[in-house]
Amino acid sequence: MIYSKIAIIGIGLIGASVAIAAKHKKLAGTISCFDANDEARVQARELGIGDEVSESITACVSDADLVMLAVPVGAMKNVMEQIADDLKPGCVVTDTGSTKTSVIKDVSPFIPEGVEFLPSHPMAGTEFSGPAAGFASLFEGRFWLIISEGVSRDKVDDYTAFLQGLGATTEEMDAKYHDRVVAITSHLPHLIAYTIVGTAVDLESDIKNDVIRFSASGFRDFTRIAASDPVMWRDVFMNNDEAVLEMLQRFNEDLSYLQRAIRWKEGDKLFDLFARTRTIRKSIIEAGQD
Amino acid sequence: MIYSKIAIIGIGLIGASVAIAAKHKKLAGTISCFDANDEARVQARELGIGDEVSESITACVSDADLVMLAVPVGAMKNVMEQIADDLKPGCVVTDTGSTKTSVIKDVSPFIPEGVEFLPSHPMAGTEFSGPAAGFASLFEGRFWLIISEGVSRDKVDDYTAFLQGLGATTEEMDAKYHDRVVAITSHLPHLIAYTIVGTAVDLESDIKNDVIRFSASGFRDFTRIAASDPVMWRDVFMNNDEAVLEMLQRFNEDLSYLQRAIRWKEGDKLFDLFARTRTIRKSIIEAGQD
Repeated sequence: MIYSKIAIIGIGLIGASVAIAAKHKKLAGTISCFDANDEARVQARELGIGDEVSESITACVSDADLVMLAVPVGAMKNVMEQIADDLKPGCVVTDTGSTKTSVIKDVSPFIPEGVEFLPSHPMAGTEFSGPAAGFASLFEGRFWLIISEGVSRDKVDDYTAFLQGLGATTEEMDAKYHDRVVAITSHLPHLIAYTIVGTAVDLESDIKNDVIRFSASGFRDFTRIAASDPVMWRDVFMNNDEAVLEMLQRFNEDLSYLQRAIRWKEGDKLFDLFARTRTIRKSIIEAGQD
Repeated sequence: MIYSKIAIIGIGLIGASVAIAAKHKKLAGTISCFDANDEARVQARELGIGDEVSESITACVSDADLVMLAVPVGAMKNVMEQIADDLKPGCVVTDTGSTKTSVIKDVSPFIPEGVEFLPSHPMAGTEFSGPAAGFASLFEGRFWLIISEGVSRDKVDDYTAFLQGLGATTEEMDAKYHDRVVAITSHLPHLIAYTIVGTAVDLESDIKNDVIRFSASGFRDFTRIAASDPVMWRDVFMNNDEAVLEMLQRFNEDLSYLQRAIRWKEGDKLFDLFARTRTIRKSIIEAGQD
């Protein structure tokens, strides 16, 4: 047991999965959960997520050694303001947001004396959301990134042990670097998937119906990605705008290059890129990420 | 048994899978295969694909009731020219190309008197290629589109029965409409996946390595798509350029709209689209395509 009590704020896919896995692996004495949404609390209680589902956010965090903010990144600031006065001295606040620079900017000013903020980001998820989407093995074999700069080593070590207990592989990195890596590996792919599915939806109605019927593998994968939680992803793009816009600019240049190659029938340019990208897949399989 | 002899030209993922499935389901008396690549023929023979792997393309098609061209769309014309004089009167030539207008333009002029051309397109595939990538269940539950206009009904019916024997669901449509539907469901998603993986590869080397290590679900899906056969896909874009460029234009407009929304922090615009695309996923699941 690593913590006597942990508090999880936000019982969505991530929060619920942490609660389920931590209980299963006995990583904490008490796992207290809270969600601002009434229905989510009822559902979480029915599903037996964690040890208790608190009716108040302050009761939830009271006496907790670890407080995990598992809410959309746009809601972090507001949640932190609500709990600041009720945190136990010596406790650690963490978060599971997909952007780190913005969360640090929003949360840090409200961290009281004697409490430390240790931002983090699980590289795991599905297109489903809400308490019922949570499952114990979500983090197994997945990376969980930690922004450890300036945080006491013992607090980082405890949290690392907790995350490894959930099955995750941890890695410490810098917030700004994190935001660039996820901009290209996660945020831009989501933005593009949302876009192409939107483009298809806006086609004339007969072709739109056939797009759905005949959706081949490429498009089907995109619709899965584009079914992800809209609030979470709106907040991601609002809060990692700088890195996303940089990567988007590069992507647009590269796409224009291919568009021009298609228009001018320059097959060699297409072949060269397609052969190059094929090797990347091999690297990912070798890195054990698929 | 629907055909006494079928000839499959091109023993790649599609050709090999048809040969394996047709043999397994006993849909033809003899299944003869040919590939211009020496290594592919050796491999196909070792794997026992079809009933025979012919050393000559003309011997392969001789006496066949059905000749299936399963080569990249850029190679269709050349293959058709080679076999035109050796086709049995009354036989049907079909193809499995991902573009239909261009293949009809390339192949039709070489179809001899007494032979009919029945273009088709299986909406199935994986990111693997070559004879060893073939497997019997590739077409099960997948759509196989047929461009039947102007072809004798009995020939269409026989071929339909053959494809259904492979496990596919058939649907007849017009070539131009087909090319627009696949431009958005298959070709554009592939082009975009190739682009974003290429964009990532071109990043500075430290971030590039971490992109591979931390590839989250979105990017991982894209790398799988971007690992598809480079020759096949080069040919697709060279031959469905009109429809792809049209869809790409729409996609670019939609992406610019979102890019602007991110820059100006217009979260509502993002949320509206993200909520709308989520419902499309449900339609696809309901249509049984996932």
